[in-house]
Amino acid sequence: MTVTAVLLISCRDQKGLVAAVSDFLYRNDGNITHADQHTDPREGVFLQRVEWELAGFRVPRDGIAEAFRPLAERFGMTWSLHFSDAVPRVAILVSKLPHCLFDLLARWRLGEMRADMPLIISNHDDARPIAESFGVPYHHLPVTAATKDDQEARIIELVERERIELIVLARYMQVLSAGFTGRFRHRIINIHHSFLPAFAGARPYHQAHERGVKVIGATAHYATPELDQGPIIVQEVARVSHRDAVEDLVRIGRDLEKVVLARAVDLHLRHRVIVYGNKTAIFD
Amino acid sequence: MTVTAVLLISCRDQKGLVAAVSDFLYRNDGNITHADQHTDPREGVFLQRVEWELAGFRVPRDGIAEAFRPLAERFGMTWSLHFSDAVPRVAILVSKLPHCLFDLLARWRLGEMRADMPLIISNHDDARPIAESFGVPYHHLPVTAATKDDQEARIIELVERERIELIVLARYMQVLSAGFTGRFRHRIINIHHSFLPAFAGARPYHQAHERGVKVIGATAHYATPELDQGPIIVQEVARVSHRDAVEDLVRIGRDLEKVVLARAVDLHLRHRVIVYGNKTAIFD
Amino acid sequence: MTVTAVLLISCRDQKGLVAAVSDFLYRNDGNITHADQHTDPREGVFLQRVEWELAGFRVPRDGIAEAFRPLAERFGMTWSLHFSDAVPRVAILVSKLPHCLFDLLARWRLGEMRADMPLIISNHDDARPIAESFGVPYHHLPVTAATKDDQEARIIELVERERIELIVLARYMQVLSAGFTGRFRHRIINIHHSFLPAFAGARPYHQAHERGVKVIGATAHYATPELDQGPIIVQEVARVSHRDAVEDLVRIGRDLEKVVLARAVDLHLRHRVIVYGNKTAIFD
Amino acid sequence: MTVTAVLLISCRDQKGLVAAVSDFLYRNDGNITHADQHTDPREGVFLQRVEWELAGFRVPRDGIAEAFRPLAERFGMTWSLHFSDAVPRVAILVSKLPHCLFDLLARWRLGEMRADMPLIISNHDDARPIAESFGVPYHHLPVTAATKDDQEARIIELVERERIELIVLARYMQVLSAGFTGRFRHRIINIHHSFLPAFAGARPYHQAHERGVKVIGATAHYATPELDQGPIIVQEVARVSHRDAVEDLVRIGRDLEKVVLARAVDLHLRHRVIVYGNKTAIFD
Repeated sequence: MTVTAVLLISCRDQKGLVAAVSDFLYRNDGNITHADQHTDPREGVFLQRVEWELAGFRVPRDGIAEAFRPLAERFGMTWSLHFSDAVPRVAILVSKLPHCLFDLLARWRLGEMRADMPLIISNHDDARPIAESFGVPYHHLPVTAATKDDQEARIIELVERERIELIVLARYMQVLSAGFTGRFRHRIINIHHSFLPAFAGARPYHQAHERGVKVIGATAHYATPELDQGPIIVQEVARVSHRDAVEDLVRIGRDLEKVVLARAVDLHLRHRVIVYGNKTAIFD
Repeated sequence: MTVTAVLLISCRDQKGLVAAVSDFLYRNDGNITHADQHTDPREGVFLQRVEWELAGFRVPRDGIAEAFRPLAERFGMTWSLHFSDAVPRVAILVSKLPHCLFDLLARWRLGEMRADMPLIISNHDDARPIAESFGVPYHHLPVTAATKDDQEARIIELVERERIELIVLARYMQVLSAGFTGRFRHRIINIHHSFLPAFAGARPYHQAHERGVKVIGATAHYATPELDQGPIIVQEVARVSHRDAVEDLVRIGRDLEKVVLARAVDLHLRHRVIVYGNKTAIFD
Repeated sequence: MTVTAVLLISCRDQKGLVAAVSDFLYRNDGNITHADQHTDPREGVFLQRVEWELAGFRVPRDGIAEAFRPLAERFGMTWSLHFSDAVPRVAILVSKLPHCLFDLLARWRLGEMRADMPLIISNHDDARPIAESFGVPYHHLPVTAATKDDQEARIIELVERERIELIVLARYMQVLSAGFTGRFRHRIINIHHSFLPAFAGARPYHQAHERGVKVIGATAHYATPELDQGPIIVQEVARVSHRDAVEDLVRIGRDLEKVVLARAVDLHLRHRVIVYGNKTAIFD
Repeated sequence: MTVTAVLLISCRDQKGLVAAVSDFLYRNDGNITHADQHTDPREGVFLQRVEWELAGFRVPRDGIAEAFRPLAERFGMTWSLHFSDAVPRVAILVSKLPHCLFDLLARWRLGEMRADMPLIISNHDDARPIAESFGVPYHHLPVTAATKDDQEARIIELVERERIELIVLARYMQVLSAGFTGRFRHRIINIHHSFLPAFAGARPYHQAHERGVKVIGATAHYATPELDQGPIIVQEVARVSHRDAVEDLVRIGRDLEKVVLARAVDLHLRHRVIVYGNKTAIFD
């Protein structure tokens, strides 16, 4: 596995952007392995993802950010730099339903997800045996309306102590405060069990059954202060029919939820997502 | 092509229903070619579709309804009887966008849709050349807020004069009155260009683009007084990405709309749909 | 959870079949919860699945087969009778790739799969830690061309000793002998990592990449003596593009394989599958 | 509608490619509206599509090819230059089944396909009324084994006389000679009614029904001398079940064929396809 650097860039669309970035890499002997860009003409926004091999690159790893900064400033870029051998630290929050948690841990155990998993937090104690069978510390932080602020403060403390980069809400059924989602902006991924914006809020499978839809879905999105309104990363659907009771929708939906959440986490961890406005560009 | 009879039945779930219907057919030497039923335990509803060959059936065609009536009354059935060689009469309502109209007429011309097509109505004159190229009479009935009642009255007059059984709203962009939809209950099929209940109302592709969804859809449903709330017949979706501008969603959506509407009309014309509550059972 | 009985029936199509079966249930006060049938006119075959509540049924559980036999013989039926509270015993065979194994065990652990899991067999020792973490006995039975017969004999011995009803090949990369597949006819489910009949045999993802397809798939089927030719139970596909290297196809395919295999096993265990000729009817 | 130029480039992967192309556009004040590239590391191939506005570009339209040539030669590029206001000339070949023909003509008539349609050729006379209703000249060129060479010569004569750029085989059921396909390399798009490579050759729906698949498909590909082996452009699938007879597969498949063929033609006409080896890269 060759080590690569990834630049994620967004800025106002201007002439010469691609030329400038590609020239920067070319002058320094960068071997580009993946490059993709997108211009949104309505918003006047330019987005780019470019990945190149560190081996042979003339700028040493520690100096790349410094070397790129003048160019970034010239164009007024919002940008981030990542290295493929970094191992991000991920926390999972879960309530009672454990299928997404189990699925993420299985992928992690089987080496499909490059991450450290030092932290599982739940408002219930049900999933503890699963966490323990995977050797991941489990924190049971019950919550009531009265203790919500305290509980969130405790979560923040754990997340920061463990230097968590990504928080995954794996069917965590508590609404997080605006303070919380704002603090970890674009670093919290939630799975909602409907194809948003249909059936936002509680009990989407019951709503879907009640409405008699022929298609159900799941949506992974970044959590924002507005419930179920954050930038969508992945959506997937499955066909259903009048034969399917609510329990069947729940059963069929579980597989959607697992796959959609895992795919979103994977895209995020591989630096394939750029958020702009309330949308995402996915460079896969 | 052998001629068949179709019974569509719905009633309160009771023991002996399937036995009674199958016994009725068996005693009269009915050769069943398709039978399907569904029990909704939550609603306590039983639905059945059964189709059998007329050839060899002991009850003459004209006497079948009479012969079946006592059984239907015993179980309190809502039921209808259809024959496969009947040719239903269909009217199409359209506004400016002609792709669904064109698609339906092409299917009709190519013999894919067993129906007579004596009537196209539009609030604009744009689609007249298409109607004429297929030899279908075209009625231009402009509408304003002030003339809405009159225009609807005129539509009703044409529909009844032509003994229309099914009205297809092929991107007809006017909201129909409760009186109109009530008069042709479960006989009006509308295509909505989103996967309902997401993006009901106006400009769903703009709404979808604004929200940044990764999936768009189309929904065919029976029109009811509540806009975009009627029983869903068919839904289909397509994947989209950040690369797709609103115009791309419109372009991708056109194919969804055409296929979804045509499939719903086909299911209706082949007596494959039973409406119960605000839902449909599709026996395909 | 109410206990139900399920009859799976296949026979030559004849008049009176549905009437006879429904009359049998009605006379004995059977409360039908699910009934579905299919007539294949080309093959002249009739298939039926009917499920009813044991509570209130006049024939005691132990006497149902006896009571039904005369009717079955009159029509020359092939049939089987199942009860929803029986817990089938399942064995999993696996080679090196553990994702399907892990997925099945997770579903089992989470209570999604009603079965006992007393036996995992592999020609490698790699998956032992997974089996042990779920508390399932693991048998490492290495195999070479020379020892193939002995190894299969050993598998048969274990399967029969454990009274296994269903064998799941969860990416078991050995070709089983005709003797083996014949012995457990329609009781072995295999997952093949392509949409058969495309890319049968070895390395289907490499074949798919080489061919430049835009869609990949997975197929669960009953294993028969002819490799990858058995009756198909479930197929699912995913979109791919020129951007996807073989490793991406493998990654995307893993999720397909897991879901497709699990769904096929679930359908089999819930008695939703009837095999006829080299095909399946799925009554879901 | 602003007029744009499109460059399609393929060459051996080398450092500096993106920098050189983007520098060429930047130096000449090109306003890039779409740029996408792909590196295939296994093949060592680089592909790029770049589109920019002609308005404001310093090189006049007629001089762009000349201005770009030195750069192209330096990197050993295979390349082509296109302008968005050019109207390509398309010929359609059809046999008896007219649904794809009708669909393409409808899209053309409705303005969805930017092309001239001066030529429809068929080995049967059946589709003549359709061609005439759209005002497109129809040539009936019957063919037998004995007259095959002559008939192809006649097709070539018509195609060249009409300066056709793209030939669409809209269910044209004759195998074309290697001479023919070689002459119009990557300029003939065929629709095959299966998800290739499954069910190549004749009667794929019959093959699919016989095999009992749960998914059917359609494939649009460039025709090459090897039947059904050319580079795949678009594939799409639909779910089927044991309830679907061959005629149902044909009916369901028709919609797949129409959409898949139309999408492939659209991608080709908008210069979104680059062929490399026996594959395509789709820059959509």
